[in-house]
Amino acid sequence: MKNFTSFADAGDYKTLLQQALEIKANPFGYQHIGRNKTVGLIFFNPSLRTRLSSVKAAYNLGAQAWVLNAGADSWTLEMADGAVMNGGTQEHIKEAIAVMSQYCDVLGVRTFPTLKDREADYSEEVFNKILKYATVPVVSLESATLHPLQSFADLITVAETKEKERVKVVLTWAPHVRALPQCVPNSFCDWFSEVDWVDFVITHPEGCELDPKFTKGARIEYDQKKALEGADFVQAKNWSSYQDYGQVISNDPSWMLTPEHIAGTNDAKFLHCLPVRRNVEVSDAILDSPNSLVIQEAGNRVFSMQTVLHELLK
Amino acid sequence: MKNFTSFADAGDYKTLLQQALEIKANPFGYQHIGRNKTVGLIFFNPSLRTRLSSVKAAYNLGAQAWVLNAGADSWTLEMADGAVMNGGTQEHIKEAIAVMSQYCDVLGVRTFPTLKDREADYSEEVFNKILKYATVPVVSLESATLHPLQSFADLITVAETKEKERVKVVLTWAPHVRALPQCVPNSFCDWFSEVDWVDFVITHPEGCELDPKFTKGARIEYDQKKALEGADFVQAKNWSSYQDYGQVISNDPSWMLTPEHIAGTNDAKFLHCLPVRRNVEVSDAILDSPNSLVIQEAGNRVFSMQTVLHELLK
Amino acid sequence: MKNFTSFADAGDYKTLLQQALEIKANPFGYQHIGRNKTVGLIFFNPSLRTRLSSVKAAYNLGAQAWVLNAGADSWTLEMADGAVMNGGTQEHIKEAIAVMSQYCDVLGVRTFPTLKDREADYSEEVFNKILKYATVPVVSLESATLHPLQSFADLITVAETKEKERVKVVLTWAPHVRALPQCVPNSFCDWFSEVDWVDFVITHPEGCELDPKFTKGARIEYDQKKALEGADFVQAKNWSSYQDYGQVISNDPSWMLTPEHIAGTNDAKFLHCLPVRRNVEVSDAILDSPNSLVIQEAGNRVFSMQTVLHELLK
Repeated sequence: MKNFTSFADAGDYKTLLQQALEIKANPFGYQHIGRNKTVGLIFFNPSLRTRLSSVKAAYNLGAQAWVLNAGADSWTLEMADGAVMNGGTQEHIKEAIAVMSQYCDVLGVRTFPTLKDREADYSEEVFNKILKYATVPVVSLESATLHPLQSFADLITVAETKEKERVKVVLTWAPHVRALPQCVPNSFCDWFSEVDWVDFVITHPEGCELDPKFTKGARIEYDQKKALEGADFVQAKNWSSYQDYGQVISNDPSWMLTPEHIAGTNDAKFLHCLPVRRNVEVSDAILDSPNSLVIQEAGNRVFSMQTVLHELLK
Repeated sequence: MKNFTSFADAGDYKTLLQQALEIKANPFGYQHIGRNKTVGLIFFNPSLRTRLSSVKAAYNLGAQAWVLNAGADSWTLEMADGAVMNGGTQEHIKEAIAVMSQYCDVLGVRTFPTLKDREADYSEEVFNKILKYATVPVVSLESATLHPLQSFADLITVAETKEKERVKVVLTWAPHVRALPQCVPNSFCDWFSEVDWVDFVITHPEGCELDPKFTKGARIEYDQKKALEGADFVQAKNWSSYQDYGQVISNDPSWMLTPEHIAGTNDAKFLHCLPVRRNVEVSDAILDSPNSLVIQEAGNRVFSMQTVLHELLK
Repeated sequence: MKNFTSFADAGDYKTLLQQALEIKANPFGYQHIGRNKTVGLIFFNPSLRTRLSSVKAAYNLGAQAWVLNAGADSWTLEMADGAVMNGGTQEHIKEAIAVMSQYCDVLGVRTFPTLKDREADYSEEVFNKILKYATVPVVSLESATLHPLQSFADLITVAETKEKERVKVVLTWAPHVRALPQCVPNSFCDWFSEVDWVDFVITHPEGCELDPKFTKGARIEYDQKKALEGADFVQAKNWSSYQDYGQVISNDPSWMLTPEHIAGTNDAKFLHCLPVRRNVEVSDAILDSPNSLVIQEAGNRVFSMQTVLHELLK
């Protein structure tokens, strides 16, 4: 593993998943790997789970960590090549990333999409600059289009919870009050469409289609009820439109997941990457039911990160 | 000890005090307790002493630490049960606390009172939610009504400084320009009214009475001069009104502690939790005198926290 | 070494430089020095390099670190002696620094000049208060007039890169869009005018003269081209006026360093403390050339700090 930015970087996902389960069973057993290593974490946007689970993952591995709130703690970054920097930006990302690479052994970076310029977002313009200028391995803590540590944690959660060989996993769109990135659903598709013991189904209102690059031909079922039939795991998530880029196409409250929606499933376990808007995306009854895995799922963020750090530092 | 939120949680205060003095004498001698442990610290409000002394306490104990500025670093939290989260709040405290519990072994949390809704504040509505949703031990870094780590540090300071068996300790109200919480004086009363080698007296202008739940029948003397007579230790602190909740009842500058006020004491040592408004609450002459213990007192915040962490992690 | 605030504090610079090169060659070889030690870092202003390189230096040395954004994380500080604190400031620097000294073994502090009150800035009013109230060794992370960790890193960079015994080093003023402090050029002069294997030349537009206290009689050449002739190393940096204090005297774009400017040098290596305004201070062609040492120079910030911490903690 050179960097970790998508499913493709994971290499053989079965090996990586096995490694994650071993690390979870013995979280402090790999500290020779992290000794004298420092994990740098840069956030261009707020974070709770990613920030803290990444720090904990570094600590478990016997490594140190630092966190930088880009912007608030340091300087405003210029992204454009060839810019004449006589305006508001104070430092070019070229220097910033190359410099920070010297203060750590792995660099985790969170960027967010513009949700305005689809081409810029989907070409991962910013993240690719980071990859270009970094001189240490880079971990995506969420980029403009993907959130691979989340999807890997989801995979760990499903794998350690499932009670039969093959399982049906459904990704369902959910309503929200704001226009959200497509990173989490894109990434969920990027991973789960490849898992050979998963029957993967995506359901959302028409017009909410994700980039086919990530859905990879997975079954899309516009009838939510039909999609959820017999499901073993349901991941709910809102996203804004990929077609009509960044727009909120639907607010349809009937898509909010409630016990009624779950009725036709195989007593499905419930997933959500968090933060979740209670009683907007998902009802309290679902989130507070024993079938909800959301806390365990967030807990597995430590082990997805720790496994990735282990691979990159070993 | 299960959590640490008040004097009652301290168990036998004599044993805890003894432990604190031993830890202070040998701060790095207990690192087997902190090994592979992480202390999570969440601040809903600014902090200097609590933030840094807690981090140092974790380090002394051989543990790691992370600090989260709730709000600035992460998401806006919803506190209400059953809320339909279609407004400004982005994550429910139920998830936030349960998730963060998985990224640490002890969770320290600072909340502040509203100073508007006495019932909400004095029922510790927010802090009790945190206790309810946490799955690891919780340490109050100051709640709506109490600041037990401060009072424990005060007790350590008095215990290690006193030169005779019994001492007279006076808590005196002091003027301020803003409406402040009652946490520190409540907590000081909560602790010092229980110490069997302390004669405890409270003095303040009429109308500044604290909640009797915390003063526990301690002597209240409205004449500051009389109260200070023969005092061995004086703790000065402003607080807003408990009766006329959150209001500034008095600005009376004659309550500002000066050498004149101290004249009738037994060469009293001076305490203040800091930050202190110089020449408003207390004069320079008091703060800069050799009898001032305020720096030592702040230093003992490391050892009150380290002792509590030691109890919770051992 | 008692504190580290200027070249004078460095003691014998040759010994310190030698130590830095040894530490760089074996960065984890001195962890007995940092064991159970904590480095406190206080920033009154944004920082990227200083913040992160200082944390990394502490980690390399086996020490722990904490970072405080003064103001944002904690309380507004009062600087004036004898102040009646009934306004916006919440804590006096006297308490703040004495308290923080108890939570660490070395205190790093960054302050910035006012650029309005030259006497206050050049008497290091704020930094001297910090030195006065601190009870542990203090490291300047940049003060009102100096940035010694940067200059020491520059010296390491030149020393490890130079290919002959004596080298010509030129500090050249560069244009900028804002009024910047004089710290970096002052400090560069403070150090390089003392190095016995350096021929040191300063070049800038007339009116941009630095404080002679720091230039110490070094050669000043107003003709940039002439100054650069035969140079082995060129450090570019903008600064505002010392004479007409804090004012921008020149924006002359002809001072921007380009390959043309470098033509007469001895294939000079290029230095800049960063952040740099690309194509305003220096052209892309210079920054992106193989002769640019700016990234290596920033990397050496780890080792200048680590060497200083080693001296102060040993």
